[in-house]
Amino acid sequence: MQDFLTKDFMLHTETARQLFFDYAQSLPIVDYHCHLSPKEIAEDAGFSNITEAWLYGDHYKWRAMRSCGIEESKITGDASDFDKFAAYCSIMPKLIGNPLYHWSHLELRRYFDCDLIINPKNCNAIWEETAEKLKQGMTARNLIRSSGVEILCTTDDPADDLRYHKLIAESGFETKVFPAFRPDKGMNLRRPDFRSYMEKLGASTGKTITTLEDVCDAYVIAMDRFAEAGCVLADHGLDNGVSFVRPVTHLAGTYLTKALNGDKVTEEEAVMYQSYMVRFFGREYKRRGWTMQLHFGVLRNPNEVMFKKLGPDSGFDTVHGKNTIYDLAMLLNDLEQNDALPRTILYSVNASDNAAVAALCGSFCRGDGSGKPTVLQGSAWWFNDHDEGMRAQIRTYASESALGNSLGMLTDSRSFLSYPRHEYYRRILCDEIGRWVENGDYPNDQESLKSLIYGICYGNARQLFE
Amino acid sequence: MQDFLTKDFMLHTETARQLFFDYAQSLPIVDYHCHLSPKEIAEDAGFSNITEAWLYGDHYKWRAMRSCGIEESKITGDASDFDKFAAYCSIMPKLIGNPLYHWSHLELRRYFDCDLIINPKNCNAIWEETAEKLKQGMTARNLIRSSGVEILCTTDDPADDLRYHKLIAESGFETKVFPAFRPDKGMNLRRPDFRSYMEKLGASTGKTITTLEDVCDAYVIAMDRFAEAGCVLADHGLDNGVSFVRPVTHLAGTYLTKALNGDKVTEEEAVMYQSYMVRFFGREYKRRGWTMQLHFGVLRNPNEVMFKKLGPDSGFDTVHGKNTIYDLAMLLNDLEQNDALPRTILYSVNASDNAAVAALCGSFCRGDGSGKPTVLQGSAWWFNDHDEGMRAQIRTYASESALGNSLGMLTDSRSFLSYPRHEYYRRILCDEIGRWVENGDYPNDQESLKSLIYGICYGNARQLFE
Amino acid sequence: MQDFLTKDFMLHTETARQLFFDYAQSLPIVDYHCHLSPKEIAEDAGFSNITEAWLYGDHYKWRAMRSCGIEESKITGDASDFDKFAAYCSIMPKLIGNPLYHWSHLELRRYFDCDLIINPKNCNAIWEETAEKLKQGMTARNLIRSSGVEILCTTDDPADDLRYHKLIAESGFETKVFPAFRPDKGMNLRRPDFRSYMEKLGASTGKTITTLEDVCDAYVIAMDRFAEAGCVLADHGLDNGVSFVRPVTHLAGTYLTKALNGDKVTEEEAVMYQSYMVRFFGREYKRRGWTMQLHFGVLRNPNEVMFKKLGPDSGFDTVHGKNTIYDLAMLLNDLEQNDALPRTILYSVNASDNAAVAALCGSFCRGDGSGKPTVLQGSAWWFNDHDEGMRAQIRTYASESALGNSLGMLTDSRSFLSYPRHEYYRRILCDEIGRWVENGDYPNDQESLKSLIYGICYGNARQLFE
Repeated sequence: MQDFLTKDFMLHTETARQLFFDYAQSLPIVDYHCHLSPKEIAEDAGFSNITEAWLYGDHYKWRAMRSCGIEESKITGDASDFDKFAAYCSIMPKLIGNPLYHWSHLELRRYFDCDLIINPKNCNAIWEETAEKLKQGMTARNLIRSSGVEILCTTDDPADDLRYHKLIAESGFETKVFPAFRPDKGMNLRRPDFRSYMEKLGASTGKTITTLEDVCDAYVIAMDRFAEAGCVLADHGLDNGVSFVRPVTHLAGTYLTKALNGDKVTEEEAVMYQSYMVRFFGREYKRRGWTMQLHFGVLRNPNEVMFKKLGPDSGFDTVHGKNTIYDLAMLLNDLEQNDALPRTILYSVNASDNAAVAALCGSFCRGDGSGKPTVLQGSAWWFNDHDEGMRAQIRTYASESALGNSLGMLTDSRSFLSYPRHEYYRRILCDEIGRWVENGDYPNDQESLKSLIYGICYGNARQLFE
Repeated sequence: MQDFLTKDFMLHTETARQLFFDYAQSLPIVDYHCHLSPKEIAEDAGFSNITEAWLYGDHYKWRAMRSCGIEESKITGDASDFDKFAAYCSIMPKLIGNPLYHWSHLELRRYFDCDLIINPKNCNAIWEETAEKLKQGMTARNLIRSSGVEILCTTDDPADDLRYHKLIAESGFETKVFPAFRPDKGMNLRRPDFRSYMEKLGASTGKTITTLEDVCDAYVIAMDRFAEAGCVLADHGLDNGVSFVRPVTHLAGTYLTKALNGDKVTEEEAVMYQSYMVRFFGREYKRRGWTMQLHFGVLRNPNEVMFKKLGPDSGFDTVHGKNTIYDLAMLLNDLEQNDALPRTILYSVNASDNAAVAALCGSFCRGDGSGKPTVLQGSAWWFNDHDEGMRAQIRTYASESALGNSLGMLTDSRSFLSYPRHEYYRRILCDEIGRWVENGDYPNDQESLKSLIYGICYGNARQLFE
Repeated sequence: MQDFLTKDFMLHTETARQLFFDYAQSLPIVDYHCHLSPKEIAEDAGFSNITEAWLYGDHYKWRAMRSCGIEESKITGDASDFDKFAAYCSIMPKLIGNPLYHWSHLELRRYFDCDLIINPKNCNAIWEETAEKLKQGMTARNLIRSSGVEILCTTDDPADDLRYHKLIAESGFETKVFPAFRPDKGMNLRRPDFRSYMEKLGASTGKTITTLEDVCDAYVIAMDRFAEAGCVLADHGLDNGVSFVRPVTHLAGTYLTKALNGDKVTEEEAVMYQSYMVRFFGREYKRRGWTMQLHFGVLRNPNEVMFKKLGPDSGFDTVHGKNTIYDLAMLLNDLEQNDALPRTILYSVNASDNAAVAALCGSFCRGDGSGKPTVLQGSAWWFNDHDEGMRAQIRTYASESALGNSLGMLTDSRSFLSYPRHEYYRRILCDEIGRWVENGDYPNDQESLKSLIYGICYGNARQLFE
């Protein structure tokens, strides 16, 4: 029996251990998709206790607590920070097999040098040990620094003036902090805040937006600003289905006018506008050599009672279930036909789609001599972001495509303590590759193995920035 | 190599064995969902041969026999009981990896103390050994008693007078036998027997049913009667999709009138009535502290040729395949908005939906301080009720939610010999938990492990009755 | 650690090895579904280099190369054969976990006695070693012969005159080479080549086709011709969904007339014709004792840019994702009601449907005393045709049905070097069965095990021809 979370954690064979310790462990981190606050990095924010660091913003933990019937006051409500932490400790023993169990313990060990098991008995001791450490300069930047992060990309609105990114760059912080471009707020004519958002976008780019041309001009200005700050990645959330319609026409402009005038826009009209815009963005990204990320398959805010109380991103989103592979294929086809398919990463939240997504990527890879896939599958996302899910994604992508091209892990997180997820992924990757080697399914050729692991854990993602 | 079906069956590590023998094996059974006949329990029915016990009512076995091209006369027809048993023995060697292979052998060993392998060579010997045992008082009650069943819930129609439940209770039988409330027959205005069913329901509750209010009043009377008999669980089969429409209106009453008058009711009208009723039931269940079970994803009677010959529940149902996650989310949302979401257990027959169902549960768990999930996923159901399927359900639910809250196993069976399925599940559960511990994925902390296993195998289900 | 691809490749237990070496390895091959060219078999074609054998027609390899960003000239273009082979070698190290990695190395070893690892360093040496061997009589027939193929079925159009099959039969070639009947070209009224195809079909059968009756008569003549050449299997590709509508009426004839007149046919009209024809074919196949194969779930040619350049079957097809289980159930039901359901094999390209497909088979198995399933699931197809996918198909089918009835492997390939896929499948099968035995899940009864393996690897498929 292996003890809990030793240095050999998740590494079940000699080869797995060798690969991890020799090749994977010390590689820098390129966290090309996260939700860290540039303001907090710029200001080098600190935390006064473990609840601030762990429970103020992490809807994964909130969700787990609700699943164990903890009262909401101890989740998002006005209970004391200690009571919230105690509530989290109380559910931990039930979370066997859940990634929170591993992540929380890894974070305790890696950042707080505390190897206590999280449970009601150890609650006080952990609270005190972590508070002590947090006082000793455990700030945003120190956490990023000590995690070995070479590059990180925040997720930013096109209307953002990127002032914090400038401050960070000017400060000489060793980690490169780049913005990533996420124009979702300007993609849906039916959003209640669409008009006010267009005003904001206009203001941030010095354009008065009244026509489709104005929208595109404003976005071009924003993209230029992002590019200056080092941006090379964009990101679109395709919720509730892909919402793409063909043929794409300039009627999109008519519907934009309706929305800007405050007139009612139908679902179909909104989809036409979105289709027009996604093609516009695709063409721009391709021209600039940016990589486009598409996140799809989420059902947002299905619980309206809790949505009214707590708003979005509070731990109530779920897997849509609707099959979107066909629509996604139509979208990629349209982009390719219109010189608008940049390098693209697909993330499905529904693990049942893994094989179909991996196959779809192959249908839109160009034989272009670049040495890289045009379209590839991203790491196991959100509800799949666990031991089972990561292994499934690795095995399926290897079976359907070329695993050696993978872009490895990203945190997708709002927490400065989330970097052990890269370690977690690397251990799993080395265990999977080690298994293939130990079983005689792949040669024990250290040159190839080193190259595979270097590429997947670091090199392939690093190339996005070249 | 482990011998076939030894005491360590399915327990692949030292920890798995320790957990099973120390904690799981001797826990009582709470079989909170089955289809046993209360009449047969009340009358303490016996069996004259193994075919009566195994092949008279088990459509799993019928289906397997048809898949091996056995003639129907030896399945549901007029061949002799011995010939039917011989036919079943003849296909067994082909059933490697099928749960019937394990269940049948476990039943032989646990109830008949017979460890012969089921195959054509041993057919006569098994026939004789089992016949001998069946003569020696192997009755319904003795089977339940010797299986260690503390509580069992039959599945009953609201119009049932529960006389057999009363007889059982009065008889002092050690096992508590409670009814569970299944109102499916009164949910679909388009069923040919809807009118006659309403008459039956009316008669059983002393109501003349002409309005929506009458229907609800009758059901309240029935629920009161069920509650008196110890009922705390209800059950709805949502076949061929979830069939829920919003907004729910009192037009439901108009459509009910049409159905009671014998007028044609459209599919849409029937769905409106069903939507009204499920909200009514949800509110009642919540008020009474009952737990609602939702079974979905089945395609009933797709083979019309065989349906005409043998009727429903003859081994021809299958997995629908239609994705119902979105509709299910809409249903749960509507119930929650109308104070009509009781504690709810979701069972999907489609294993591809496992992850989406597990995630969906989390979206409707209230932070209510109860220490329990509001909505949770039930055990691997029907076509998933096997080694692979149970492990998949355990791993997915652990990854997405808190496995410690699971309600463990249920037989869902018409057979008094089906209790070894609880043993089967417990072995698998201990093997999965043991694997996590042996791999260093969870601490070897006996207190937590004992508590997990106690809860999942017994305690959590027992709490449904408190 | 096991060395790469030793004689124990994929055989992880003692029992697995014993089963493979004692029972599976030396069984003849019945390759009842492939796409080999009867012309090349008749002419006993040879190859001048490894690129001709490997890269001229294999869209699996093309797809993998595009996924690694190789330039198209080295895939399907005008680069030299050596440069194409070098490009393939260059991507191999990235293909860990991909079946191409295993198949390519197995083919090198089994046919060329070359155990070099395929990578850029060994490119020259492999090129030369294989060229040497190819000169030494490594022709189509010798490859088939040395692979131990007893029977193979090509896939042929009903208008084919089967001249090459006759030549092969007359030549006394030891392997039986039968045609299989694939009428897809005459099933879709909207195909641009429908009219010309009907002329071709008419010419090949001596019929002038103007009515539905003519079409059916022509097909009956073609089926008779195929039957004479030993055909016992038919095959239908149900792309983009199942496309079946009920009730089937003679309007099909009206729509045929429109198509033959060059008038526009709607999607609905085309589906009606297809529904009529599939029922016609089903009835004919059943009457003749043929087996019908249904392949479904593929999205053809989603990348129109590449379709225009390279045409169909160039490595751009993908998994449709649309759920077709319900439609498939309706189709099977209709066939059964019309005495038109022959023995049928279902192949889904979407692994997420595995469990639903396996369950569906059981719903249409007749209790007919044949000792065989009426409907069964075929081997893991196309995008599932790998280690993970084959194991998943074996485990799911075992869990849901009777694995002992499986028809084992088929190559589905255009390549004369693809027979090691049977070895690959047999190793996996023996490993899976060995695992069950070693774990004590199935008795170590050599008689049953031998019979299972004989049946699955050879006997059950052999019976298709009796």
